[in-house]
Amino acid sequence: MKIGIAQINTTTGDFEGNSRKILDAAKLLKERGADFAIFPELALSGAFPKDKTKSSQFIKKNAEYLELLAGKLEIPSFVGFVRKSEKAVGAYNCLAFISGGRVVSLYDKCLLPNYGIFEEPRNFDAGEKVGVVELNGKKIGLTICEDIWSLDAETAPRYADRNRPVDMLKAENCDLVINVAASLWSPKNEAARLKLLENLAKELNAPVAFCNLVGCNDEMVCAGFSAVLSAQGKYCGVLKKFGEDFAVFDTENLRETEISQFDETAELYSALKMSLGDFVRKSGFKKVALGLSGGIDSALVAAIAADALGGENVIGISLPSKFSSGHSVRDAEDLAKNLNLRYDKISIAGVVAEAEKALEKIFAGLERDVTEENLQSRARGLLMMAISNKLGAMVLATGNKSECAVGYCTLYGDTCGGFAPIADVYKTDVFKLARYVNKDGEKIPENTILKPPSAELRPNQKDSDSLPEYDVLDSILRLYIEGNLSVSEIEKMGFAREVVEDVVRKFERSEYKRRQLPPAPRLTISSFGNGRRVALTDRKSYEF
Amino acid sequence: MKIGIAQINTTTGDFEGNSRKILDAAKLLKERGADFAIFPELALSGAFPKDKTKSSQFIKKNAEYLELLAGKLEIPSFVGFVRKSEKAVGAYNCLAFISGGRVVSLYDKCLLPNYGIFEEPRNFDAGEKVGVVELNGKKIGLTICEDIWSLDAETAPRYADRNRPVDMLKAENCDLVINVAASLWSPKNEAARLKLLENLAKELNAPVAFCNLVGCNDEMVCAGFSAVLSAQGKYCGVLKKFGEDFAVFDTENLRETEISQFDETAELYSALKMSLGDFVRKSGFKKVALGLSGGIDSALVAAIAADALGGENVIGISLPSKFSSGHSVRDAEDLAKNLNLRYDKISIAGVVAEAEKALEKIFAGLERDVTEENLQSRARGLLMMAISNKLGAMVLATGNKSECAVGYCTLYGDTCGGFAPIADVYKTDVFKLARYVNKDGEKIPENTILKPPSAELRPNQKDSDSLPEYDVLDSILRLYIEGNLSVSEIEKMGFAREVVEDVVRKFERSEYKRRQLPPAPRLTISSFGNGRRVALTDRKSYEF
Repeated sequence: MKIGIAQINTTTGDFEGNSRKILDAAKLLKERGADFAIFPELALSGAFPKDKTKSSQFIKKNAEYLELLAGKLEIPSFVGFVRKSEKAVGAYNCLAFISGGRVVSLYDKCLLPNYGIFEEPRNFDAGEKVGVVELNGKKIGLTICEDIWSLDAETAPRYADRNRPVDMLKAENCDLVINVAASLWSPKNEAARLKLLENLAKELNAPVAFCNLVGCNDEMVCAGFSAVLSAQGKYCGVLKKFGEDFAVFDTENLRETEISQFDETAELYSALKMSLGDFVRKSGFKKVALGLSGGIDSALVAAIAADALGGENVIGISLPSKFSSGHSVRDAEDLAKNLNLRYDKISIAGVVAEAEKALEKIFAGLERDVTEENLQSRARGLLMMAISNKLGAMVLATGNKSECAVGYCTLYGDTCGGFAPIADVYKTDVFKLARYVNKDGEKIPENTILKPPSAELRPNQKDSDSLPEYDVLDSILRLYIEGNLSVSEIEKMGFAREVVEDVVRKFERSEYKRRQLPPAPRLTISSFGNGRRVALTDRKSYEF
Repeated sequence: MKIGIAQINTTTGDFEGNSRKILDAAKLLKERGADFAIFPELALSGAFPKDKTKSSQFIKKNAEYLELLAGKLEIPSFVGFVRKSEKAVGAYNCLAFISGGRVVSLYDKCLLPNYGIFEEPRNFDAGEKVGVVELNGKKIGLTICEDIWSLDAETAPRYADRNRPVDMLKAENCDLVINVAASLWSPKNEAARLKLLENLAKELNAPVAFCNLVGCNDEMVCAGFSAVLSAQGKYCGVLKKFGEDFAVFDTENLRETEISQFDETAELYSALKMSLGDFVRKSGFKKVALGLSGGIDSALVAAIAADALGGENVIGISLPSKFSSGHSVRDAEDLAKNLNLRYDKISIAGVVAEAEKALEKIFAGLERDVTEENLQSRARGLLMMAISNKLGAMVLATGNKSECAVGYCTLYGDTCGGFAPIADVYKTDVFKLARYVNKDGEKIPENTILKPPSAELRPNQKDSDSLPEYDVLDSILRLYIEGNLSVSEIEKMGFAREVVEDVVRKFERSEYKRRQLPPAPRLTISSFGNGRRVALTDRKSYEF
């Protein structure tokens, strides 16, 4: 069999665009000699349509476009779409096999993930039947993404009481097993998935063709890296990571290939670049705008944005206050020059002074406090949003995960934006990424990387005045957020109790800010937003 | 049997506070002659702890406090808590029966809702066993909230393939069936639940004791209205709606009682008042602040806030601009006087002028547009947030559902706030509620109710300039949002296609604003936020 894999970047709800990509790819793969083409999970509808599965119009369009594809596809193809179900939820996450101008068979995803950012059982009914099709006398077993994660020790218990596709396929003696996916990128997931596909091939004693989505929809980051494995579970070919790619593999001539080691920082950078570019473009924007403080977070976001969209589409604004150090503006200017941004400097002094004047009467007799610090940040937010409105540029919020975690951000100030590109990136990784950006020469000014982090909202302020060093902070946060450990459990791992308590207290007190953050790419299991769901009115009396 | 029902208002994660309420209520019910006491769903942990079920510390505290309760409860009691599970998710939504100083038996919720704002299968494993306990020679069947919704025709199909508690209880010949709940209030749900409890009694031929949560946690609104029904399915007593309440019913002496008709507007008002009060208090605040535009939305929110928290805890600020009509400030002043608010007037002119000046260079040669309108709204947001910071008052966002639906709100402007009390209330209901507030005399100035709605962001602006009349708008929105109907389907119901298209286009274009709205009480099945989950990068090519 000559397997064609079409690793395409689909957009949710874009039936026209997705159909065009599917038809073009099938044509290309046919020219390259493929017997059939495989597309990523829900290739036609895009992944994931979420509650739109409740719209009968949406379901209808899926069926209509699938018929259109059936009439036009030049080779047999496996195309995912949303299929009407008669069960309670009303829709299946389905893989259609199209051949000879018609839809020949349908396989409905059986195992639906309901953790992290996933909530598929909310929107799909679970399939219950095995998926097998015959093509040119060969038997092909079908699976969709999570269907095969019953082979992962950590995930398996979730599906203990369900019909598991891999188990059902055992009796079928398939000549090939397909997995179409919209599998999320993260350092941890990459290693687990590699292993999983090996196990799948061995378990079913059949070659495996894995077609993963590449690209981002909202917080989802899918890296591609589709693959073909031999029946012995050896990797015999992989497709690009972080880019569309197309390849044909001959099952009669599979030869083992080496999978190179991951460079975590390089991959994280690629993930961030792809997610920013996709979110901005798929939202209908070409340009972005952001405040350049001279600090490392905004510098990194600017560098990623310039790389993803072109420096000419990035508007970088320096918005200094009286507490900004001299180097802040210089560093911002250097950065803008290095990245070829559209750069400007706007003073916030007038807005801040007028706001303080307007509030004079109501604040009479009260001390200056964090209010005046936040005012500066919010004056910046107000000016950036005006620039966004007038110039049609999406504002990027530049806060990192460590800051957002402890509430070192001002709601409606530096959190303003349509997208928060690094809100799931810890500060220690921000430093690594800045070094990575500069690997071939200085883009982010060295001074920006070296100077102690500061919000510059009062004289001589430094982050380390009220926070532990970032390596300690990030370690505690990872244990608390990703590990779900308690204060006492973290203390036992070698951290000072008062430091842990202080971090956890700051974290829990700032939940309301995270609730209103812009969407951000999901890079960890507990990303803020949909990855981590908590009650704001939770008293949290149990944390200490 | 003398059934004691304790309809208490619990707080998520407040083990101390919830335990105290449970012990006090049990004591009270014992004094009133009850044989045992029933508490709402998850009474000990609060409903719902969401992802905190993953914290081993949280699970441990549940067990510890349950033991403490067992040692102190003065009568046998049914107490909900989060129990450790050995299955994949790791926790059960459990009802403990405590008697004689120890936990006698445990029943785990079987049917876990996964729609609307609910996502229980994410956080709980499903129980599979029937729940029955014996007390004084009587057999009591146990169910938790959704467990009995398999008797509702619309909900039943969701649980077709599960062990359904009501079916399992049929074989048990119970003398009484208990349902403990955190069931959401909404006009539709009230009628359905009344019928459901009748069916439950008839189906099992046993009296029913229903103990519902009263109070709000985040967007949840639970109204109480606990009840006892005879084996014939007749209502023989109900507890308060929208308040804590305690009652004892003797199964040997049940007499049918009349359930009075609902007044939808009165109940909606009570729901809004309770949710605002609970959210503010459970978040640790006493005071709120809001901008008073002289319009009906902010007037209604101010009236509700004054009723919930006391006028002296409500800071109402008039923030007029050059486009504000003369009556706007007068109406705001009248309102503040009527409600006994702390009132002040702050000019936004200086901030707006300075912002425009700061942006002069970058905006050179560009026309005035919506940017300058948004600037005014954001200047107000900035000043309100400063007042919040300085005076420790939570800002309330006053937008209604119709406005938020079509994007007639400015992100980081009038959407600023810790809570959005009426974001799930359509404008047509806002008018009804304003009339209701004034039922015993003018609180909201008559002029505020009568004048045509306007954002007053440019000269002589009126909402109706670019929107259909609100009764038409709301009808279309309800069909589109709650009904999941398409443009064509709505058109067929008698609306002009171009109007429907325009509304839907405005709705879909403003999704990004709704993503960042403050939390709001859930009053409809498709409340913005957790009740309705959509992708921002969805191209929505299928809507038209």
